[in-house]
Amino acid sequence: MIGQTASLQGIFADRYDSDALLTYASAILQHANVPPQDAQTVARNLVLAELRGVDSHGLIRLPVYTRRLHANVVNARPLINVTRPFAAAALVDGDNGLGAVVGLRAMEVAMELAIGAGIGIAGVCRSNHFGVGAFYVEKAVNAGFIACAISNAPPNMAPFGGRERFLGTNPFAIGIPAGSPPHLIFDASSSVAARGKIIAAAKANQPIPAGWALDPKGIPTTDPHEALLGAVLPFGGAKGSAISFLIDVLSGVLTSAAFGPRLNTLENLKALQDVGHVMIAIRRDLFISTEEFNGRIKELFAMLTASPPVPGVERVLLPGEPELRAEAQNRELGISLSKEVVEELLDLGNRAGVTFPSQKSCM
Amino acid sequence: MIGQTASLQGIFADRYDSDALLTYASAILQHANVPPQDAQTVARNLVLAELRGVDSHGLIRLPVYTRRLHANVVNARPLINVTRPFAAAALVDGDNGLGAVVGLRAMEVAMELAIGAGIGIAGVCRSNHFGVGAFYVEKAVNAGFIACAISNAPPNMAPFGGRERFLGTNPFAIGIPAGSPPHLIFDASSSVAARGKIIAAAKANQPIPAGWALDPKGIPTTDPHEALLGAVLPFGGAKGSAISFLIDVLSGVLTSAAFGPRLNTLENLKALQDVGHVMIAIRRDLFISTEEFNGRIKELFAMLTASPPVPGVERVLLPGEPELRAEAQNRELGISLSKEVVEELLDLGNRAGVTFPSQKSCM
Repeated sequence: MIGQTASLQGIFADRYDSDALLTYASAILQHANVPPQDAQTVARNLVLAELRGVDSHGLIRLPVYTRRLHANVVNARPLINVTRPFAAAALVDGDNGLGAVVGLRAMEVAMELAIGAGIGIAGVCRSNHFGVGAFYVEKAVNAGFIACAISNAPPNMAPFGGRERFLGTNPFAIGIPAGSPPHLIFDASSSVAARGKIIAAAKANQPIPAGWALDPKGIPTTDPHEALLGAVLPFGGAKGSAISFLIDVLSGVLTSAAFGPRLNTLENLKALQDVGHVMIAIRRDLFISTEEFNGRIKELFAMLTASPPVPGVERVLLPGEPELRAEAQNRELGISLSKEVVEELLDLGNRAGVTFPSQKSCM
Repeated sequence: MIGQTASLQGIFADRYDSDALLTYASAILQHANVPPQDAQTVARNLVLAELRGVDSHGLIRLPVYTRRLHANVVNARPLINVTRPFAAAALVDGDNGLGAVVGLRAMEVAMELAIGAGIGIAGVCRSNHFGVGAFYVEKAVNAGFIACAISNAPPNMAPFGGRERFLGTNPFAIGIPAGSPPHLIFDASSSVAARGKIIAAAKANQPIPAGWALDPKGIPTTDPHEALLGAVLPFGGAKGSAISFLIDVLSGVLTSAAFGPRLNTLENLKALQDVGHVMIAIRRDLFISTEEFNGRIKELFAMLTASPPVPGVERVLLPGEPELRAEAQNRELGISLSKEVVEELLDLGNRAGVTFPSQKSCM
């Protein structure tokens, strides 16, 4: 019994209710002059990352978001401008607003276009860090659309054959509605491993796996400290490098946003980012009825998950299924935050006069 | 001087003029009742694969294409039916025609839709093996469009975590017009390595690299014979597996074509394939002028190729650049064919009363 209690305490230690974190993050953003509805949007994006277990895009970003707002390199109250040059295409000028606000607006526009034209593409320029792409495709998938969200990002990754940071770890998220939840929501960066994992390894003084990163001379390294000075590598070699580059062509070149190594980092408080995104929505009843689509997708999902696993694996998972499982668990048990992040958020709350929530109690 | 002559002979040995091979392949297909223009289309697709150095999709496929035509599991004279349910979307029912004929028609439709709507998506059902995706995006890119071609394929690949063939090595090709040639044409399968490379290793009794394939029990293997009995692996682990799966969702589920492990192989002469594709075309002047797009894309390309390479690499290449280089060289020197392929083609020619071209002479 003592063991069970200890284990339960372990589960609940440092866990916070997701709604309480949402309220906190929204209040912090409102204190930085963001209108309530927009603050809620950004807070939902950050908390969704935490729920899905993608800590690198979670509340750890809130301090730098607020620093950028206070430094006036992000516009708290943008006048987002939407132009529709073609029946299936719109350009969303983000007016340097917060990425989640601009990006969500763009996905809504893509959905509107798709209703009429079958498919809708919204290009976005003059935006900022958009958090997790899952946030946008989830919105569209819940409304019954197939959806895709991509973004460029500041350079952190060497291209295939290159030794310097050139590409962002440009993310791509794809959502497929499944008739009834859970829907398929796949969200990935185009790097082998998140930079956050290398930072964690450096703190623990543990080597990183081969193939994750290059040192500053372009030599593959397993030393996390050298890796942080060098560049992360794209997933899947030349193919992943190409995918990351092509995401930049669409998000940056096509939309008139910044592209390539010109994107400024979040940490540079003296420069705008001018991040570009592309949101695409597709009607699932494009060629067959919704009922037929729902039946067929259910069938394919069932076939994949019934496919025999390799030794040591319980069953084959759908793309994005690990994150969906994490979300269900974290919604119930609460979101686990590291001591460092909690300290930063407490400090942020103190300065804004916003109370950081207490830990979730053991029911 | 003797060395130089020998080396020149080596270059020209077993090389064939690409136009002569085009004429030959077209004549073979016409002998199998394919109309001249369609025969030319398929021949161009196969020869393009040879030019780009993708032997696995080249003339080696001509014998099985003709066997399928003679067995009446592919329709030599399809009535391709195009319906346009939405302003930016069309469904192309291939009537079981040759993949290159149906696929090219679909890309043309996607381009027509894009002219009016900004973006056009053509779903394809009841098609067949479509050869290299580069063929379709090249057509669109030459007309100034950004383009994407994807297809599903019979199961050859284990999904991430799975041990049995479930996914096709579903290809994805993307083209970006560059203002003036060469354009960017990227074409990849979603497997780590082509099955053709494993066949070659098995013939030479040489081990394959770790990570390419599983044996029939789902254990990673470097034995090419075991690998051929087992399954190839997706590129980039879980991410590449997800991409391959999502290609099947779009190409198969959305379009009403076959999907998952239900696709029949090319070699099964008793069953239709019902392959599905999706072709997407996007106006490059969607949000900015063509001149601006051309200038920006040129800038990004120049920045990438000027980016410092890793030790041992001459310079960073654009996606698809190795294939473009191969194409330029093979167009000039002639296409190199293996003895086995030449014997098969000679035999095919004899039976159809079509003369296989002689080797390209040393100029």
